[in-house]
Amino acid sequence: LLGVKSHMRQPRFGKRRLNVDTLVQRPDRVLVRVQDLTPENADQLIWLRARVHTSRAKGKQCFLVLRQQQFNVQALVAVGDRASKQMVKFAANITKESIVDVEALVRKVEQKIESCSQQDVELHIERIFVISQAEPRLPLQLEDAVRPDGEGEEEGRATVNQDTKLDNRVIDLRTTTSQAIFRLQSGVCQLFRETLTKKGFVEIQTPKIISAASEGGANVFTVSYFKTSAYLAQSPQLYKQMCICADFDKVFCVGPVFRAEDSNTHRHLTEFVGLDIEMAFSYHYHEVIDSITDTMVQIFKGLRDNFQTEIQTVNKQYPSEPFKFLEPTLRLEYTEALAMLHEAGVEMGDEDDLSTPNEKLLGRLVKEKYDTDFYVLDKYPLAVRPFYTMPDPNNPKYSNSYDMFMRGEEILSGAQRVHDAQMLTDRAIHHQIDLEKIKAYIDSFRYGAPPHGGGGIGLERVCMLYLGLHNVRQTSMFPRDPKRLTP
Amino acid sequence: LLGVKSHMRQPRFGKRRLNVDTLVQRPDRVLVRVQDLTPENADQLIWLRARVHTSRAKGKQCFLVLRQQQFNVQALVAVGDRASKQMVKFAANITKESIVDVEALVRKVEQKIESCSQQDVELHIERIFVISQAEPRLPLQLEDAVRPDGEGEEEGRATVNQDTKLDNRVIDLRTTTSQAIFRLQSGVCQLFRETLTKKGFVEIQTPKIISAASEGGANVFTVSYFKTSAYLAQSPQLYKQMCICADFDKVFCVGPVFRAEDSNTHRHLTEFVGLDIEMAFSYHYHEVIDSITDTMVQIFKGLRDNFQTEIQTVNKQYPSEPFKFLEPTLRLEYTEALAMLHEAGVEMGDEDDLSTPNEKLLGRLVKEKYDTDFYVLDKYPLAVRPFYTMPDPNNPKYSNSYDMFMRGEEILSGAQRVHDAQMLTDRAIHHQIDLEKIKAYIDSFRYGAPPHGGGGIGLERVCMLYLGLHNVRQTSMFPRDPKRLTP
Repeated sequence: LLGVKSHMRQPRFGKRRLNVDTLVQRPDRVLVRVQDLTPENADQLIWLRARVHTSRAKGKQCFLVLRQQQFNVQALVAVGDRASKQMVKFAANITKESIVDVEALVRKVEQKIESCSQQDVELHIERIFVISQAEPRLPLQLEDAVRPDGEGEEEGRATVNQDTKLDNRVIDLRTTTSQAIFRLQSGVCQLFRETLTKKGFVEIQTPKIISAASEGGANVFTVSYFKTSAYLAQSPQLYKQMCICADFDKVFCVGPVFRAEDSNTHRHLTEFVGLDIEMAFSYHYHEVIDSITDTMVQIFKGLRDNFQTEIQTVNKQYPSEPFKFLEPTLRLEYTEALAMLHEAGVEMGDEDDLSTPNEKLLGRLVKEKYDTDFYVLDKYPLAVRPFYTMPDPNNPKYSNSYDMFMRGEEILSGAQRVHDAQMLTDRAIHHQIDLEKIKAYIDSFRYGAPPHGGGGIGLERVCMLYLGLHNVRQTSMFPRDPKRLTP
Repeated sequence: LLGVKSHMRQPRFGKRRLNVDTLVQRPDRVLVRVQDLTPENADQLIWLRARVHTSRAKGKQCFLVLRQQQFNVQALVAVGDRASKQMVKFAANITKESIVDVEALVRKVEQKIESCSQQDVELHIERIFVISQAEPRLPLQLEDAVRPDGEGEEEGRATVNQDTKLDNRVIDLRTTTSQAIFRLQSGVCQLFRETLTKKGFVEIQTPKIISAASEGGANVFTVSYFKTSAYLAQSPQLYKQMCICADFDKVFCVGPVFRAEDSNTHRHLTEFVGLDIEMAFSYHYHEVIDSITDTMVQIFKGLRDNFQTEIQTVNKQYPSEPFKFLEPTLRLEYTEALAMLHEAGVEMGDEDDLSTPNEKLLGRLVKEKYDTDFYVLDKYPLAVRPFYTMPDPNNPKYSNSYDMFMRGEEILSGAQRVHDAQMLTDRAIHHQIDLEKIKAYIDSFRYGAPPHGGGGIGLERVCMLYLGLHNVRQTSMFPRDPKRLTP
């Protein structure tokens, strides 16, 4: 131990030697969690491991704020029986973001400490040891990283731009906002799986390295594969469908999907997490829509009911309206949407795809008329959908396909799939797709295939739009775009 | 409709036109599940959708076995009031594996039907429609694909070799064995996540496209990334560790990992699913071992208690002893294991790594001595572990690292990690690793990092070894190895 005062029996402060001092043995000592500190602990002597969030020396005292994730508590080292002048000086010199072990007496405070999550107690430190020391210059300050845009501008306070945050993600992720976002994201995945498991879906694992680009070869990453080359899957769709042909009946998967698209927008990533669903249905593809929309509704409810703290935390930095949804989910047909857009002055043809601005406008019109941030747009023009989309049997200009939207932005694209090898071949020829390249795919339907449909949801978009954020990089832990491959 | 008998009011048999006939509307009709057919349904008229598993015409009758996943039921079309000669002929000509809708009367049978899962009832078909017709020649027969090795050899009955199965995976996955394997696999993932979520772990999503090969560049796949190149992650370890440095405390992730290793063995894949864990600990890395072994034990118990049908189904084709484990999990030190191997006549040095045959032998010795198929081997020689492994503070020849084994094969590799930037730099130099390439990794530890450790589990290996199978391709839905990229 460094900095030990020789006249003390046991050291009261110092720097722990890496993996040698307390870390070798397993002491009986229990480390208390910051979030558990309440007046009930008053006058108890406890041990705690936390980061030094802020530090302020003042005469013979040093005030620290100690932080664990989104929780923090005020702590004090003061010259007296249990702390020497040297100890106070040692504490005052501990760099911000360092990790310390402290032994401290919990004291109830008269006046609430507004700046901390634990407002009713403070810690009187009797021993303090540095477990891991942070470098003195941080590339960004946590308080700057959580400051709402515009706030404190007059006082000349900084905010941190997004690239600086992402370049130093390991620090940026420590902010209350980031902690809340990614805890909520973990919740989305859990709610997605729980809901589908209850509905009898089976989780599958699909390969990401594939031999042929399924949708014609555009926007696909190439991988060197021993003496040949391969591709990164743009979606698990082919494999989900094979599982349906292999009698798994209802399947889902959660995993990375890759898009080699040179799009530098607020909502495109080159790698994102797909929440994918595929299911056989009995009579009508609306059974699939019903399963997916109910799953989304269960996610929205679960977030609303179990992640209110996280939502509020994110709202402090990024204010937004609470997310609204209906039960059952609103389903509009493409032609109805076009009529709404025409009425709002938009000129577009019956078989044109929606542009991003028109999607957003439609979202606003739907919100005004129906008061929902979530809806399904059904029966897209066949011409704008992939070759494996089932045409509408009643009108060959349209198709049994749908997108789903949150706050006016697309989060899911799906359809009834063509489950007949001959029809699939005809549709591929119509789309001028090289049949040789999709042979294995088409062959999957030659040995009996039930009618089925599904869709793929973008996890990062769901989190972004649910929270009313404006950039998908905020909801991807380590985002990848055409210009960013690190950290 | 084709094949409709004109004198009947409603058609009794035929081929449904794709997406046009019943599929357009949503009839009130409820489709019954095969597994729910019991004598309680006797004399009910029900609708059912299923595959034609087998078909046998016999005079004026046609016997079908109708299958849904692992469940099947005998069905009969006989010339009479409700079926014409043409209808029986139509039924007899339906190809195996086709999907049909039938309306049938449920009848209790006198004598159990041993060959079907539903032994107490049979179906008297009154209407039968083909929903999806299978091609007449199947690339493999399901009954051959589930035949135990050696059985029926005298009668000249075939088994199906693994490549044929994998080449026609969409059919092979329909077998009872495959259905059971992948339902159990889905269970492993669920138990893994549930156990860790209960322990306070947060699920994270880590990028698979990375800018630098973390472990020196061997065995890594290269991806073309716009105008530059990138790599496929060999593990999420760097990102898990960054999450620990970012205060997530305990994290897990489930996702693909990629190894460009030209190993053509029973247990290597180039892409597999990693179940990854990383956690900060208080005082001793054995806290990490305890968390991981308890998670494995919860998985083993969950499988034993909830997947007994699946285990029995797989055992029918691939007999094996039930999987044995101890509570708490057996932990051996490397030196103890070496002593056992020395005693068994193996010659190897103190700092040598275990060869695959020695791992297997050790597994047998441990099973004999301790009666367990699962154990931890702790304190590996430092020399055989990656540069980021924490050395044993008591003996610099060893390290705070461990592997875990099931039935004598490695399923997890893990360690306490070096959490200090300077020590990590020194270790990287010792391993002659280019510091420039791992700069971002080392920098993650400059701003305070708690002591932590973790490990990565191979999902396919866990399933293979739990079930006592002998090839990891059996537990990967669409396996990837140096020679296989399809389907």
